[in-house]
Amino acid sequence: MKQNDKLNLTMLCDFYELTMSNGYFQSGYHDRVCCFDLFFRRVPDGGGFAIAAGLEQVVDYIQNLHFDAADIDYLRSRAIFSEEFLDYLRTFHFSGDLWAVPEGTPVFPGEPILIVRAPAIEAQLLETYLLLEMNHQSLIATKSSRICRAAQGRAVLEFGSRRAQGTDAAITGARAAYIGGCAGTACTISDQMYGVRAGGTMAHSWVQMFESEYEAFRTYCEIYPTNATLLVDTYNVLHSGIPNAIRAFNEVLRPRGITKCGIRIDSGDMAYLTRKARQMLDDAGWTTCSITCSNALDERLIADLIRQGAKIDIFGVGERLITARSEPVFGGVYKLSAVDDGTGNLVPKIKISENVAKITNPGFKKVYRIYGPEGKCFADYICLYDEEVDERRPLELFDPDATWKRQTATGYTARLLLQPVFRNGALVAARPSLDEIRAYTETQLDTLWDEVKRFDNPHNYYVDLSPKLWTLKNELLRHSRPGTETQQ
Amino acid sequence: MKQNDKLNLTMLCDFYELTMSNGYFQSGYHDRVCCFDLFFRRVPDGGGFAIAAGLEQVVDYIQNLHFDAADIDYLRSRAIFSEEFLDYLRTFHFSGDLWAVPEGTPVFPGEPILIVRAPAIEAQLLETYLLLEMNHQSLIATKSSRICRAAQGRAVLEFGSRRAQGTDAAITGARAAYIGGCAGTACTISDQMYGVRAGGTMAHSWVQMFESEYEAFRTYCEIYPTNATLLVDTYNVLHSGIPNAIRAFNEVLRPRGITKCGIRIDSGDMAYLTRKARQMLDDAGWTTCSITCSNALDERLIADLIRQGAKIDIFGVGERLITARSEPVFGGVYKLSAVDDGTGNLVPKIKISENVAKITNPGFKKVYRIYGPEGKCFADYICLYDEEVDERRPLELFDPDATWKRQTATGYTARLLLQPVFRNGALVAARPSLDEIRAYTETQLDTLWDEVKRFDNPHNYYVDLSPKLWTLKNELLRHSRPGTETQQ
Repeated sequence: MKQNDKLNLTMLCDFYELTMSNGYFQSGYHDRVCCFDLFFRRVPDGGGFAIAAGLEQVVDYIQNLHFDAADIDYLRSRAIFSEEFLDYLRTFHFSGDLWAVPEGTPVFPGEPILIVRAPAIEAQLLETYLLLEMNHQSLIATKSSRICRAAQGRAVLEFGSRRAQGTDAAITGARAAYIGGCAGTACTISDQMYGVRAGGTMAHSWVQMFESEYEAFRTYCEIYPTNATLLVDTYNVLHSGIPNAIRAFNEVLRPRGITKCGIRIDSGDMAYLTRKARQMLDDAGWTTCSITCSNALDERLIADLIRQGAKIDIFGVGERLITARSEPVFGGVYKLSAVDDGTGNLVPKIKISENVAKITNPGFKKVYRIYGPEGKCFADYICLYDEEVDERRPLELFDPDATWKRQTATGYTARLLLQPVFRNGALVAARPSLDEIRAYTETQLDTLWDEVKRFDNPHNYYVDLSPKLWTLKNELLRHSRPGTETQQ
Repeated sequence: MKQNDKLNLTMLCDFYELTMSNGYFQSGYHDRVCCFDLFFRRVPDGGGFAIAAGLEQVVDYIQNLHFDAADIDYLRSRAIFSEEFLDYLRTFHFSGDLWAVPEGTPVFPGEPILIVRAPAIEAQLLETYLLLEMNHQSLIATKSSRICRAAQGRAVLEFGSRRAQGTDAAITGARAAYIGGCAGTACTISDQMYGVRAGGTMAHSWVQMFESEYEAFRTYCEIYPTNATLLVDTYNVLHSGIPNAIRAFNEVLRPRGITKCGIRIDSGDMAYLTRKARQMLDDAGWTTCSITCSNALDERLIADLIRQGAKIDIFGVGERLITARSEPVFGGVYKLSAVDDGTGNLVPKIKISENVAKITNPGFKKVYRIYGPEGKCFADYICLYDEEVDERRPLELFDPDATWKRQTATGYTARLLLQPVFRNGALVAARPSLDEIRAYTETQLDTLWDEVKRFDNPHNYYVDLSPKLWTLKNELLRHSRPGTETQQ
């Protein structure tokens, strides 16, 4: 079977989700309602926050969730699933509830950014795809946000398709990069599918195809007079590329009264070359000519180039964005937090670990984001689902690991961080356009203090537990003594 | 449009390929036959060689290459392409030639691993997809080979879907990991689509779902008596997990005469825990119980664990394999090497760079791999396509950068490294099964000297140019003086 014959991604699950599902089915647990939290434990690159992304693809996936005949045949061929279970899968669909933070929301380690409440098999089967999609797009949106902030208002274009880890990484990667702040992409299909504005002009091969660099430039300007960004480093930027570009602009664009044009430099010392190039272009009267640079750039190199006075208007960023090269893993996890006891009562569950940071927060929960009067958020507050924060009353916040660190907030605003997305299997959330998501991301960044946005040693944003949740967690921990066999 | 509505990946191209194509069309260059080389400049992780992979998907892509009505409509909406060009795209397909190394071949920096000879637009439009697919799968196959070699014969399973960079990275990533030596994957759809054997048993959520760990284990053993690998670290490996696993094995498997079973540990100190676990299992008579470990492993940690006497039979490797975390970019490039001058004569082209390592090898070429009498290869030899290596005659090899380093080979065998894949647009290569590719990869590793396979500071394998190619390259460089405008 060719990859592209396979549209339905229901089978993009870890095999253990199927063995467990068959097991739940056979042991009568499959209708037990479970809650799972999706959260992550640290921000890549030591950053102060991440940008959540990927929810739109999660919605598509859940709406399309089903096992077709070929899937059932494959599973039968593995000879470990009961016929009753395979029969059950024929009409399988998602009937549960799902809450998530809107795409583009800044999020912090340890808090649920997506919560599923559904019958055991449904909740379990979503695990791989939900993690994959949220991990990947949040990784790229977060990296994109860093790179775009480093560019300080200059445009950043995503150029990395050829180094992406597979086709989807290129396509949805460009989408996530746009959410994080990129102005566009080189990836044509991302524009066609998602409206990520795609652009591009020429490669070195265009320049090499013609008898001379000048002829290549002149021909391009004649065909695309209003979109002439010329690649000037095929032979020599300052001695050949820029003079030929200026000549082509003078001979083709100037007579037509066109002033918009550009050059691109893809190699060499960007600080030196762009300063020289800017001077040559300005001296020739092409002050309107933009300078684009692209060559293994990331937020560190961009910040350095700007510090050194490089004259760059547009950054083309490739492999280091599309793979998040400096830290290419977003470690989201999906953990069971509660199970119905068979009588409609959700019993909190905890996962214990030698590593204290890996102990989960039990129970069916929700999260408030707490804002000060100036509109900046200063803490997220995780509580049990039946708790309410009353803005009219002081809110005591304490560090769950160092409980003596306390503060009492007054005059704050509390907003629920996660929104209902599916309710009894039906989509209840609006589906914002990609441009709306990108604009929302930008406004959300304004709600963060600069200290949280710093690249190095950012302020450790408070993610606190309610007293009730903290007490529940510690009671469960106390009752799960090593050596006992029966534990919640 | 939902992503999965989009099957045809023709539009997964950088936009500049379309602007250039329209430009070639309008300037009468579109039928000019061009040659492009796909090659890479360095092996990730400082390794001595890479494993080429991705060709099967390239074949699918080329066979499916076409612009449908929606694609043409999208392009028209961009308002920069001529109607004649859009009309030309309606019947666009690949009519050219393509050579490539078989999947699983060890390859070295600087040599073409794929060559395209086709009319300009066809050759140019393939650029992004060819690079993306070959870069991604070669990256993962190369990493997988390192990890599997570190495991010294122990099985390695690919567990990384949830941390993969998008859906395709999970699916074809599992395929590439299998080519590199993994014994299987957790990714169900990769088995269904490509035959990468998928397996898995339980997550922590299975254990948490039941009243006790023991009950979870016993239930699992009853449902899957011949496939019982129990996850023993939900509460405490040595005080709870292992004793409960032994009890379940004793009570469910032993009465049925089943000896095959396993445990999996996903956290904690693997060296200590597995030695203790092995002892406990052996003492209980379960010497046949396998121990699987999974927790952010890679080739370094696996080598360390084996050195420390960890008792591990199977390694489950996740995020560090599926993203090639230590170096997540395979830097393959696609460079023009020759252009027909309009009379059927291929004129060599060179891309010059300040960075000497980035200067391309001009001309339409082929590559021989040179083997000694013991069957190990010791050099690759790049020459122009019309040259022949005659095994009956001595072959002089010299370092193209340090030409005084010379050796004369005799008694060698020379094999062409690249094979014809497409001829005039028709597929002419066999399509080996995935298991054949995996077996081929294994035999190919045996043709490399151990010095090349070393992880740190491997021997720098010789990739040499024929005297004719070396002379051509240096003549082109000499004639392209900086400052001149007309260059080949």
